[in-house]
Amino acid sequence: MAEIAACLADLPGPSDGAAEAARARESTLTKPPGALGRLEEIAEWLAAWQDRNPPAVENACVVVFAGNHGVAARGVSAFPADVTAQMVANFEAGGAAVNQLSRTAGAAFAIVPLQLDTPTNDFTREAAMDEDAFIQAFTAGWDVVQPDCDLLAVGEMGIANTTSAAAVCHALFGGDAQDWTGPGTGVSGDALSSKARVVAEAVTLHKPEAAGPLDILRRLGGRELAAMAGAILAARFNRCPVLLDGYVSGAAAAALNEAQPGSLDHTVAAHVSAEPGHRRLLDDLDKTALLDLGMRLGEASGAALAINIVRAAAACHAGMTSFADAGVSNKSE
Amino acid sequence: MAEIAACLADLPGPSDGAAEAARARESTLTKPPGALGRLEEIAEWLAAWQDRNPPAVENACVVVFAGNHGVAARGVSAFPADVTAQMVANFEAGGAAVNQLSRTAGAAFAIVPLQLDTPTNDFTREAAMDEDAFIQAFTAGWDVVQPDCDLLAVGEMGIANTTSAAAVCHALFGGDAQDWTGPGTGVSGDALSSKARVVAEAVTLHKPEAAGPLDILRRLGGRELAAMAGAILAARFNRCPVLLDGYVSGAAAAALNEAQPGSLDHTVAAHVSAEPGHRRLLDDLDKTALLDLGMRLGEASGAALAINIVRAAAACHAGMTSFADAGVSNKSE
Repeated sequence: MAEIAACLADLPGPSDGAAEAARARESTLTKPPGALGRLEEIAEWLAAWQDRNPPAVENACVVVFAGNHGVAARGVSAFPADVTAQMVANFEAGGAAVNQLSRTAGAAFAIVPLQLDTPTNDFTREAAMDEDAFIQAFTAGWDVVQPDCDLLAVGEMGIANTTSAAAVCHALFGGDAQDWTGPGTGVSGDALSSKARVVAEAVTLHKPEAAGPLDILRRLGGRELAAMAGAILAARFNRCPVLLDGYVSGAAAAALNEAQPGSLDHTVAAHVSAEPGHRRLLDDLDKTALLDLGMRLGEASGAALAINIVRAAAACHAGMTSFADAGVSNKSE
Repeated sequence: MAEIAACLADLPGPSDGAAEAARARESTLTKPPGALGRLEEIAEWLAAWQDRNPPAVENACVVVFAGNHGVAARGVSAFPADVTAQMVANFEAGGAAVNQLSRTAGAAFAIVPLQLDTPTNDFTREAAMDEDAFIQAFTAGWDVVQPDCDLLAVGEMGIANTTSAAAVCHALFGGDAQDWTGPGTGVSGDALSSKARVVAEAVTLHKPEAAGPLDILRRLGGRELAAMAGAILAARFNRCPVLLDGYVSGAAAAALNEAQPGSLDHTVAAHVSAEPGHRRLLDDLDKTALLDLGMRLGEASGAALAINIVRAAAACHAGMTSFADAGVSNKSE
């Protein structure tokens, strides 16, 4: 844990020079100032965190981490825990949504299963992971970020992990357990009330003992959440901007941000999920999602879809002609 | 005008068979029901209007129509009218935003200038177009839709055309002129108030005499608005779904919808523009935009960007494996 804390205390910042160059270039391009809206912000953000202008998206990577959760035994999901491994096989065979979304976005795809045969502990009884297990998962995430990746989309698969995300968010941000607990794969009625009680129990047990946001992630997270946090932090050191996916990746990211404010400045929220806690989480993180399409699948689906938007922003910024070069009048008469 | 009315009275409907097949397929795919949100709706919409399942986006086309407006002489734009022709040259040279957006979306791009040397009449004094001019522009739009196009993104360029869009919307939907009048390329303060007065004057002059929604489009529109209406209607007869762009393409489309309710069922609003009248217009059309990125450039930029989303929806629907084929459990235990 000390090594992670040391990384967080020594985060690389944005390149002010590249951001300034991007702003200067943007103002010359053949459009009214600001007319590309969020695409202009994205181009400047990419330049700042890639440390180059014009920025580019040539090696986008989608990574999905998979883990199993002891708390699944509490009946918090509409699907059995076996589905995690079955879906990993589906990702490997190319049959899941994120495979199609990665392909249409022109991105590389990797699935990283994390000891699926050994679920984390049921966090209503004890910490989900001990320190070794947490560090091992975090490091698996860190190691997956390749040096040539210029845009990383991170996501997850893990039956019961919206319960884990809800517990992490409730512990980090307070409120009521039901504020953070949603249908996940599709629980409702009594099952949803029971899921919220599980979240409340877990937070009541661990919050008083937790040594900080990362310890909350260890106690209430899962291996895929720890791995996403590791990948997001590694990307920061690799000058690789990150697209966060939905509620579970957001919860993992939030632990970093609460441990060190600003540690998510190199990330953009790709979309806002239909899982109700996600909108609340993005508000707490002061993030505005790029997409709002009612998606709630996880598996990096929203982040993979948003790669198209980021690439388009970079393409406009890099490819458009200036008023002077195009011979277009830039002022009213 | 009688021919257009005849087309509107005899619109092809969606394919219920293809839509039903899409719904049936969707329910077998390896995800919780509804977890892809809007992407699932888009896949079904594509299937219904392309009349095939699975649907596909293999020949997306972006078309930008350009026209000049007599009302530009009233000082309603921040840019001089010469910019329309200059931007057409920029589109032809590949230097505009929509060129980059079409390329990154894998779409063909066409720019169709419409008699730029002959602006429409100043509609604060007389109708923008006589019937011949209107039909000529409408037909130019109709003719541009190629038989193999399977997704059409329509947009426009024309200095002063947000004034035209505001006048069309104000005449079609009522309210106050200032409700529909926005900054366009960037007017504010007194210039914006003056723009709203121009819109009010025009509607006061023409609304009492107008013979219906298409006559409103003739009197208050422009050649590029008439052409967009023609292209949207031709696409309906070609089984080609359409992505509407921003405020100006929405205003042209609205005239069709008011003339014949349901005539925009084969269209989706690609984005909601930062031009304030657009959000109000989408409410009146009962359309929910796919994207909300603060864009306000026109030139089909939002529609071109949204092609990526529609293609991704089609790719998920066509490429995902079923629970049975993937060996993934589909029920909770």
